[in-house]
Amino acid sequence: MYNYKYLFDFTKNAFLRMGCREDHADTIADVFLAAELRGHASHGMLRLKDYYELWKAGRINVSPDIRVVHESPSTAVVDGDNAVGMVAARRSMELAIMKAEKAGTGWVATRNSNHFGIAGYYAMMALNHDMIGICLTNANPLVAPALSISRMMGTNPIAVAVPALHQPPFVADFATTPIARGKLAVAEKKGEKVAYGFVQDRTGKPSDDPAILKAGGSMVTLGGDRLHGSHKGYCLSAIVDIFSAVFSGANFGPFVPPSVAYLPVLDKKTGDGTGHFFGAMRLDSFQPAEEFKAKMDEWITTFRSSLPAEGEERVLIPGDPEREAEERIRREGIKLVPAVIDDLVKIADELGIEFSREGDPSFVIP
Amino acid sequence: MYNYKYLFDFTKNAFLRMGCREDHADTIADVFLAAELRGHASHGMLRLKDYYELWKAGRINVSPDIRVVHESPSTAVVDGDNAVGMVAARRSMELAIMKAEKAGTGWVATRNSNHFGIAGYYAMMALNHDMIGICLTNANPLVAPALSISRMMGTNPIAVAVPALHQPPFVADFATTPIARGKLAVAEKKGEKVAYGFVQDRTGKPSDDPAILKAGGSMVTLGGDRLHGSHKGYCLSAIVDIFSAVFSGANFGPFVPPSVAYLPVLDKKTGDGTGHFFGAMRLDSFQPAEEFKAKMDEWITTFRSSLPAEGEERVLIPGDPEREAEERIRREGIKLVPAVIDDLVKIADELGIEFSREGDPSFVIP
Repeated sequence: MYNYKYLFDFTKNAFLRMGCREDHADTIADVFLAAELRGHASHGMLRLKDYYELWKAGRINVSPDIRVVHESPSTAVVDGDNAVGMVAARRSMELAIMKAEKAGTGWVATRNSNHFGIAGYYAMMALNHDMIGICLTNANPLVAPALSISRMMGTNPIAVAVPALHQPPFVADFATTPIARGKLAVAEKKGEKVAYGFVQDRTGKPSDDPAILKAGGSMVTLGGDRLHGSHKGYCLSAIVDIFSAVFSGANFGPFVPPSVAYLPVLDKKTGDGTGHFFGAMRLDSFQPAEEFKAKMDEWITTFRSSLPAEGEERVLIPGDPEREAEERIRREGIKLVPAVIDDLVKIADELGIEFSREGDPSFVIP
Repeated sequence: MYNYKYLFDFTKNAFLRMGCREDHADTIADVFLAAELRGHASHGMLRLKDYYELWKAGRINVSPDIRVVHESPSTAVVDGDNAVGMVAARRSMELAIMKAEKAGTGWVATRNSNHFGIAGYYAMMALNHDMIGICLTNANPLVAPALSISRMMGTNPIAVAVPALHQPPFVADFATTPIARGKLAVAEKKGEKVAYGFVQDRTGKPSDDPAILKAGGSMVTLGGDRLHGSHKGYCLSAIVDIFSAVFSGANFGPFVPPSVAYLPVLDKKTGDGTGHFFGAMRLDSFQPAEEFKAKMDEWITTFRSSLPAEGEERVLIPGDPEREAEERIRREGIKLVPAVIDDLVKIADELGIEFSREGDPSFVIP
């Protein structure tokens, strides 16, 4: 079992050794650990290896010159200079918040970036400013449009964070597919089938094989099939792609570069790198902030009092599961699976730092 | 068979007789007919009766004083003064476009409005200004959050319109439920069952009964069940509700007032009327407009060239079905079902105008 500080310091040191500036390494470590704490281990320490391998392959820039290349009072376009995604993303969201301070709302499209971890992290940056935060990103193509078998889109997530007064904030952070890709990998490793409605084979027939992506299959969009609204999930994923890539000048759809080094660089480009989109909206550009937040409290308590379906204990507000995971994980510590520990020990060794295989020796239940 | 002009003039005259100003009656008729032309008859002439009955019951204001009650450089809140929804919505979207002219983007939240027809109409208003248009609205509560049986949300649609250069625009306009409510009504009238995955009974069990809403059932969110991502559809619908009602000061969730006169006014209010949210984003606040539109052409042709699944002919771009419907319906005329014709004849009679039961005598294939 590891505690927050041990993994934060390790991650920070790893990126410092790769050549990142200290404030950049801080940001990267903070986003990695936010994923672990919020219960999204699929975007946490497990992924450090992917960034490390991209760095070794010279495919990611640890000394980026992140620049604003276009702006209006409420908007900007940022060129991430092929930075580690977290660095370009945090800078972009800070800019959206600054724009919102003056214009009421701020909207930043970012190109030439890379995988940035969990979208919810950036949306939540707005909360302490009494703003709503929004974050979208495109991603490696694995998902077919409705009625198609071509992998044209990523799992393209949407994150929206809304502050409340006494209630915890509303934080939605979800892929525009029925499940995250990570769940397929887990089922495959366990030798299990998955439920129908997540993936299809190379002809477009529903499949329960979690390894079907390796056999020309694809993931389906939210909705699952045309009868149940997969065209709506396609619309959503397409909107995320357009906002992230066409506004910014990044690669769209099937041309988004791989976020892992074992996949080759694509031949065709339609822009620069991966694209993100960030929004910040001052509450008081619509309502006095205290009134808005009091109304959100009422919204949250109203929805929390919805009657559960038979067999269910309660109805959740978006953000509840992650907040409860964070409370638990801060208390109990962060558990890493053996394969991830192996990777981190190997990376530590190559970078000349240390990673304890036995867990954090200083870990005590606080 | 009716042609556009006949139904436009009839609708306009009906609202003039109810006391609307001419420009308001023009707007209302234009939105009704846009629904018919785009193949969404569920939001077209079929609904005229609902507005008429609300007017007869004194529950809708045909002489509204629509006011901007709060603003910042890129935002505004509009009080619709209980107007016919189309009138408040059009005015609000015009304001969003004006805000975007100066600030790069414009965002308007509208309260104290009513059912406004198809969301896509307002999003598409941005297209000729070289802007992306966005429109959201909350609606009568019929939909349960994931894991719940309480009707807390409407079918809360999302519309996003994006201009292209030589290609037709990208226009997504979709409810955040697997199907529209109208499809349940159609199946019920035909005495047919519906597929599983659209509705649930009063205990939360999946149902194939299209009349289940009358027996305490509810619609489910996009995703269908928890395994297939209904919590993501819940997030989406909740975001639409918060943007439409909490930003604007309208009623949220279960307190959205009925859009039909045969349902009583609700006892509890959490704001004023129904809420909408509108956005306009200048293309050139991110990229030179011509470059953006050329890139959208490339996006569209790329996605249109996706391989169809076995048994499918082609992959569509959002907006294709409605555009093709419009081409066909403009050519062939607008067909109304007998029950709608009966309603319109009765309304015409009561308002002292005429409606031809035989269809438009002047209709000729152009």
